[in-house]
Amino acid sequence: MACLSSLLEYGTAKVIVIRSRVVGSVFRLIQFLIILYVIGYVCVVQKSYQVNDSVISTVTTKVKGTGFTNISGLGAHVWDVADYNIPPEGESSFFVLTNMIITPNQMQSSCPELPDQSTICMSDCDCTEGSSDVRGNGIQTGLCVNYSETVKTCEVLSWCPLEIDTDLPENPLLAGAENFTVLIKNTVTYPKFNFHKRNILPDVNSSYLKQCEFNRITDPHCPIFRLKDMVAEAEEDFQTMATRGGVLGILIDWSCDLDFPEHYCGPKYSFRRMDNKNPENNVAPGYNFRFAKYYKTTDDVETRTLIKAYGIRFDVIVFGTVRPHKQY
Amino acid sequence: MACLSSLLEYGTAKVIVIRSRVVGSVFRLIQFLIILYVIGYVCVVQKSYQVNDSVISTVTTKVKGTGFTNISGLGAHVWDVADYNIPPEGESSFFVLTNMIITPNQMQSSCPELPDQSTICMSDCDCTEGSSDVRGNGIQTGLCVNYSETVKTCEVLSWCPLEIDTDLPENPLLAGAENFTVLIKNTVTYPKFNFHKRNILPDVNSSYLKQCEFNRITDPHCPIFRLKDMVAEAEEDFQTMATRGGVLGILIDWSCDLDFPEHYCGPKYSFRRMDNKNPENNVAPGYNFRFAKYYKTTDDVETRTLIKAYGIRFDVIVFGTVRPHKQY
Amino acid sequence: MACLSSLLEYGTAKVIVIRSRVVGSVFRLIQFLIILYVIGYVCVVQKSYQVNDSVISTVTTKVKGTGFTNISGLGAHVWDVADYNIPPEGESSFFVLTNMIITPNQMQSSCPELPDQSTICMSDCDCTEGSSDVRGNGIQTGLCVNYSETVKTCEVLSWCPLEIDTDLPENPLLAGAENFTVLIKNTVTYPKFNFHKRNILPDVNSSYLKQCEFNRITDPHCPIFRLKDMVAEAEEDFQTMATRGGVLGILIDWSCDLDFPEHYCGPKYSFRRMDNKNPENNVAPGYNFRFAKYYKTTDDVETRTLIKAYGIRFDVIVFGTVRPHKQY
Repeated sequence: MACLSSLLEYGTAKVIVIRSRVVGSVFRLIQFLIILYVIGYVCVVQKSYQVNDSVISTVTTKVKGTGFTNISGLGAHVWDVADYNIPPEGESSFFVLTNMIITPNQMQSSCPELPDQSTICMSDCDCTEGSSDVRGNGIQTGLCVNYSETVKTCEVLSWCPLEIDTDLPENPLLAGAENFTVLIKNTVTYPKFNFHKRNILPDVNSSYLKQCEFNRITDPHCPIFRLKDMVAEAEEDFQTMATRGGVLGILIDWSCDLDFPEHYCGPKYSFRRMDNKNPENNVAPGYNFRFAKYYKTTDDVETRTLIKAYGIRFDVIVFGTVRPHKQY
Repeated sequence: MACLSSLLEYGTAKVIVIRSRVVGSVFRLIQFLIILYVIGYVCVVQKSYQVNDSVISTVTTKVKGTGFTNISGLGAHVWDVADYNIPPEGESSFFVLTNMIITPNQMQSSCPELPDQSTICMSDCDCTEGSSDVRGNGIQTGLCVNYSETVKTCEVLSWCPLEIDTDLPENPLLAGAENFTVLIKNTVTYPKFNFHKRNILPDVNSSYLKQCEFNRITDPHCPIFRLKDMVAEAEEDFQTMATRGGVLGILIDWSCDLDFPEHYCGPKYSFRRMDNKNPENNVAPGYNFRFAKYYKTTDDVETRTLIKAYGIRFDVIVFGTVRPHKQY
Repeated sequence: MACLSSLLEYGTAKVIVIRSRVVGSVFRLIQFLIILYVIGYVCVVQKSYQVNDSVISTVTTKVKGTGFTNISGLGAHVWDVADYNIPPEGESSFFVLTNMIITPNQMQSSCPELPDQSTICMSDCDCTEGSSDVRGNGIQTGLCVNYSETVKTCEVLSWCPLEIDTDLPENPLLAGAENFTVLIKNTVTYPKFNFHKRNILPDVNSSYLKQCEFNRITDPHCPIFRLKDMVAEAEEDFQTMATRGGVLGILIDWSCDLDFPEHYCGPKYSFRRMDNKNPENNVAPGYNFRFAKYYKTTDDVETRTLIKAYGIRFDVIVFGTVRPHKQY
């Protein structure tokens, strides 16, 4: 009962009112100055209601280096950037081919499917004309033909001969790619604060840029990175990663506090393997994709060289937020 | 007057001051503990001043499936991923060719422009040598030549014969693309919280991954999506969308509350058509682009096959913010 | 002493408690309504605890225009979009080739390196078989051969003849690219607010879209931009930028206040040169990359045309945050 009655009590602070024009004027003047400060300085001048701003970034990359392969049947081949950098130009990522399965001289024709639980057949009855398995290589013709002397498989219309992708070289064909270098040019903008800066800092000149190489201790401002070093910083082994491919993140952190001079606001590089290589859950490992070069024979028949390309995709990921001056 | 005088009043709460060392010490101790909690626990341990963190994401995709076309004049053709996936590799989007206008055997030469208000001519006086219309196909030679028996148009230097892009097949040539599947591998990182996770969850093993297919009810964790299903989830019809092309967003939401165990933090997939198909404002519909395959004849003359490619671009859009532990 | 004793004082406001059921009930009712408003309206209905939402955007672009070059040794050549837009399709950026160094008919063979401090040799002893310099063009064969009548350099296995990239044309070969136009289609989504809009506004119809061109004063809603105008808005000269290449940012700001009708929420375009052209720190200027077109001779030998492509990459950068209704 006492509790309920206390619930229905209303308490208010006892107030002393001083009826003095001097004290009152000073009080209102102070109130006015506070309001003026909040609106004029905090909101208008410092724009502190903008808690922060996210970065707008542009990245261009340029890889340098030459690789050499000597694949049996294809002979010696020198690879330069136009060959191993596919596609030639990415928005903020670049790919370096390190290993591959090449299937030259493919033509539109028919050939036996690769043997597999669903493609091995005894007679034509086991094959369905026109059917196409998502995991298969073509459209079945309805015939059952010899794949080898002992195995028969359903025939398919496809680019023949089919790619046999089980014998991936155990060591990356382009092992020399670890010594390739890449120049990363990155410009960032914080539009709300009209702040612009690039990762090639003012103290870097052309002659330094011609021969420098990024090193966290001796050359922390050089924007040229050796591929092997980047992979090592991510605590990975280049040759292992190059065999089956992978994705390496080049993280550039531009988080800055504009209370300090612009001079202190610079890029902080770090490297992380972005695809999974967790041995406990290592399903679908690596990174690869297929592309083809198309030719025409003298009889005007289209042929192609199919390349299953394994390699390292380097994703340049720029992030950061900036806080306004004097805002805490 | 009373109002003004009340404006110049100064009111302050009446305060009772208890001069007791015991009560005062307890009061200051409580104040000190609050400050300690705010600085030590909220700021340093929990970093709650970091309101949230945006996701850093890496996406790789792999499309599987084989298509078949039988275009008059070009014959039967089987399409595999190296043919219909252009360019072979995107950062976080992939394109599947579903319909096309093929113009084979183009060569650098001169031919009559396609008839149009500005290109139809009566005599050479109507054509200007060297002029080039932004919407035209080449550089005018200054001649007025027969386009057909009844129509004369200005001759242009260009890749001839010109592409006639008015007769787009009404049904997508690669209608079978609806049964293609795509494996999406996505790894996310919240750098401030040192949180890393991939969309292939720990309970997914290799044998499951070989045969599974995403289904919101039966297989919500399978990262392999059938193209038709994704388009259907966006409430679109695959064949309609495939005819004129479009952009489909694959949205992966990784918003998480780290108060719950990491186990509860998983990808939430949704699908949306990203380009407009609003019938009221259906200007510039669909999605297409042109690319060419270049050949050389035996006489060392460059020829090309121009392809106006219609298809669906799938943009994988990863978003999400994560909130720190215990921060409310 | 007085100071310390004042530190241990405890002050609290003198409170008057009114023991009236009527006043108390009104006071508690008002408290209840405020809580109801905060939870029900602010949190549930308006979701104002979501301070803002970042934009999800899809961009497609389509370039139109035809260029003409007359390079000595290669003859007249007309360039259309399939030729100068490389790769044919980007996620949110497109590249327009404006200048180039073409090296036709390269074959895998051996030839003398370009003369340089490290490649000039007197005898075979100065060359190391199998070595490969990151800045070089191939793998050394160990021979020292005549580069010219006066200079000997180490021979390399490479794509020969080597590209000589010192004589870049002083004026862009595709100077006419300044009159090319691009149609930018951009759709944005604020997922938390279920807000979707595209940059082709409802008042733009097909016939207007066929002939309009963006102009900040007369046609601010036309999504077709002349390349020259965009570069001029960024206060750059097209021909200068086209010679050595560069990156131009097309910034689309979709920041909106949803308190106003949706009608007021539209795209605001601005243009900025994103790569550095600061004369004080002008190291590594411009933008270029190399790509190749591959051919096979009648003897089945692979040849290629290497192109060092200079041009302007246009990055469409969409940004913006939206604030919830009535949240201040």
